[in-house]
Amino acid sequence: MTQLTAVFLNCTLKPSPAVSNTEALANKVVEWLNHLEVASEMVRVVDYNVKPGATSDEGDGDEWPLILEKIKRADIIVIATPIWFGLRSSVAQQVIERLDGTYAERNERGQFPLYNKVAGVVVTGNEDGAHAAAESTLFNLSHFGCAIPPNADTYWVGDAGPGPSYIEAGQDHAYTKRTTKWMALNLVHLAKTLRASPFTEPIPPLDADHSPGVSTMETNLLGS
Amino acid sequence: MTQLTAVFLNCTLKPSPAVSNTEALANKVVEWLNHLEVASEMVRVVDYNVKPGATSDEGDGDEWPLILEKIKRADIIVIATPIWFGLRSSVAQQVIERLDGTYAERNERGQFPLYNKVAGVVVTGNEDGAHAAAESTLFNLSHFGCAIPPNADTYWVGDAGPGPSYIEAGQDHAYTKRTTKWMALNLVHLAKTLRASPFTEPIPPLDADHSPGVSTMETNLLGS
Amino acid sequence: MTQLTAVFLNCTLKPSPAVSNTEALANKVVEWLNHLEVASEMVRVVDYNVKPGATSDEGDGDEWPLILEKIKRADIIVIATPIWFGLRSSVAQQVIERLDGTYAERNERGQFPLYNKVAGVVVTGNEDGAHAAAESTLFNLSHFGCAIPPNADTYWVGDAGPGPSYIEAGQDHAYTKRTTKWMALNLVHLAKTLRASPFTEPIPPLDADHSPGVSTMETNLLGS
Amino acid sequence: MTQLTAVFLNCTLKPSPAVSNTEALANKVVEWLNHLEVASEMVRVVDYNVKPGATSDEGDGDEWPLILEKIKRADIIVIATPIWFGLRSSVAQQVIERLDGTYAERNERGQFPLYNKVAGVVVTGNEDGAHAAAESTLFNLSHFGCAIPPNADTYWVGDAGPGPSYIEAGQDHAYTKRTTKWMALNLVHLAKTLRASPFTEPIPPLDADHSPGVSTMETNLLGS
Repeated sequence: MTQLTAVFLNCTLKPSPAVSNTEALANKVVEWLNHLEVASEMVRVVDYNVKPGATSDEGDGDEWPLILEKIKRADIIVIATPIWFGLRSSVAQQVIERLDGTYAERNERGQFPLYNKVAGVVVTGNEDGAHAAAESTLFNLSHFGCAIPPNADTYWVGDAGPGPSYIEAGQDHAYTKRTTKWMALNLVHLAKTLRASPFTEPIPPLDADHSPGVSTMETNLLGS
Repeated sequence: MTQLTAVFLNCTLKPSPAVSNTEALANKVVEWLNHLEVASEMVRVVDYNVKPGATSDEGDGDEWPLILEKIKRADIIVIATPIWFGLRSSVAQQVIERLDGTYAERNERGQFPLYNKVAGVVVTGNEDGAHAAAESTLFNLSHFGCAIPPNADTYWVGDAGPGPSYIEAGQDHAYTKRTTKWMALNLVHLAKTLRASPFTEPIPPLDADHSPGVSTMETNLLGS
Repeated sequence: MTQLTAVFLNCTLKPSPAVSNTEALANKVVEWLNHLEVASEMVRVVDYNVKPGATSDEGDGDEWPLILEKIKRADIIVIATPIWFGLRSSVAQQVIERLDGTYAERNERGQFPLYNKVAGVVVTGNEDGAHAAAESTLFNLSHFGCAIPPNADTYWVGDAGPGPSYIEAGQDHAYTKRTTKWMALNLVHLAKTLRASPFTEPIPPLDADHSPGVSTMETNLLGS
Repeated sequence: MTQLTAVFLNCTLKPSPAVSNTEALANKVVEWLNHLEVASEMVRVVDYNVKPGATSDEGDGDEWPLILEKIKRADIIVIATPIWFGLRSSVAQQVIERLDGTYAERNERGQFPLYNKVAGVVVTGNEDGAHAAAESTLFNLSHFGCAIPPNADTYWVGDAGPGPSYIEAGQDHAYTKRTTKWMALNLVHLAKTLRASPFTEPIPPLDADHSPGVSTMETNLLGS
């Protein structure tokens, strides 16, 4: 088996070289993946000129195609986002909007191009919002074709209200350290498993008669 | 391989024998699972005396243990919920709250008892809220140990505001028919895959030094 | 002006006399309301036999009508809820579902019965979910007719993962103490203001031609 | 009384002159406001060079200050957003992130600069997500200082899955026409009311002893 690879999309609002708390936690996952012999690439989305839109290339200098290429090559996709006002960042939301363009593509099996990849999320915030940011992001990624292992997220948030950030206050937090390792283990297990046993069904056509058992084609497709 | 089984938790507010739109859509998934040779059981949660709480047995006639036993026996868990005010029903929320009790258990691998199961959701509503109901429910199930295949949800909602329900208006909706089949195919593929290649790592202990590579134990755990 | 009154619906999962962290924080708001000469009543919803459903009386011993009566009498409505799995509790969700029944009623102005009341929320949790619990609850209450002042919520949550609860760890949290006072001040100001200047328009009929300016009736309704 | 004014922030992903469904519905609210003698301004946010960030001026050609000035001048603030993947658009999320900068300011009463304004939302989508988009946005605006009248939202969404947009399919939708008018009526009533009876309390300081009744200062502040 060729080496598994992971891409991390850091959706901080801050361009490089500003320190990103979200990247700091994402890097902990990268360390675990290294240990598990998975090669990772970190992409700070805001460093690219990503145009607003919902296609895979909005033209006019749009650099989303560069990021999309990295996503398509990876086995594991991790969206890392800060929380802003209880939700994922505008940059993370934009990443999801741009991935809408992949719905227009099919791989060689007739599936979306993100099929047979696995996904996870990393979330940091001063407080509150990790569940909301994680659940919407994992759900969206599952619609694009990614499979989600159990415990596919790691997050750190402080207590209610403004306060310190992950680098200052969260790096030794036992719960977050545990979920960081756990996430890496589960992402890798599922990625290996799908390498060996990928989803093979094409996307069901929209206009077919989807009554089970009535069509010879269905019977053949489903095998037995 | 012994036959795969699925349990559907219908989280309608209406006790039997009232007609449940959510059950009607869930039954379409059951038909597909039948076709794929998976045996399903439908549980209408509100027909049981489920006590408020967050343990696996709240005593005093609590019938949650009967439902939990069905969940633990199944390979595939589907939560089917109506939307009320943009979110999953109180009954679905209660199911998740009661599953909190499973965090106190470990299987023979040192995992939560829902590990190596796969999960999906079915959502119906007169309008709006399917994403919110689906994403929170799948995320919660993934925390209990379930793996989530791509496109693990099917839903029907009407347009903005009050209006007809699924049975009256949604049964011929092409999009919902497609996602119903798709969900069944993907649940079964992932359930079969996890039968053959289960997650085997125990839950990482909370108090360990989770630095990759420094501990012999870790090295051994993570294997070659 | 007759005295303003507030009703607090404590949506803990724990029946009396169990200690409720949510009630402890709600009581801090009550203290401020007392100070502001508003009389409060605390209702622990789970102590009542509230049937599943979406009407104002589900019969068969349903005690929701007792709670609804308290709601209708109050000027200020506060839903106090613990967080479970990132969302408001099943009991809070059920309260909202049962308030659906008020959509079938009209007051003497042709409005929903909760018009010209003001609403706030109190949220507690070991961690994460306060924004989600607060925003859905305030939005739902605004649909029933309540007006929402600024900063109409107070919450306490701890940092990521399981941990201590409000009574143990949150009572001296400066941020929460501030929002508790702030919420009380703003609820009372808006309640007084709406006593003096209530919304008076009836609910626009569903089937009217809602084009501004074309109808004499509209012109008259809209006044001057 | 000087004329009331409203600002609409259209958070479509599409720069002018592309047709915006969200703007089309927002314009229906503008018509009602015109009828109610409120002057409105429509701002298409994506036409401005708004930098990522969470302050009021990110420098380097950042045009957010131009938009913020419009917001500060208005009595009524309406965020109009399309739904993308069940949530408000990345542009709407960015607007909220940039408004974070207003937390650093105080008006002459010691309040955030958005105090004594009222807020509403307009949401359009092919399907599903209006509740999520509306509730998070109104909640965030309430934290900045806006008051929220009842029924402060209007939305149109189609049934489950991809489909036509508002202009094509929603303009005659009775429910949306009703909520459009309703929202306008209620925004104007509350804006007028707050002109006459504004919130006057300053933001409670973070470090005060917030026990009601113990402090002379408090007693004085709270007044008669």
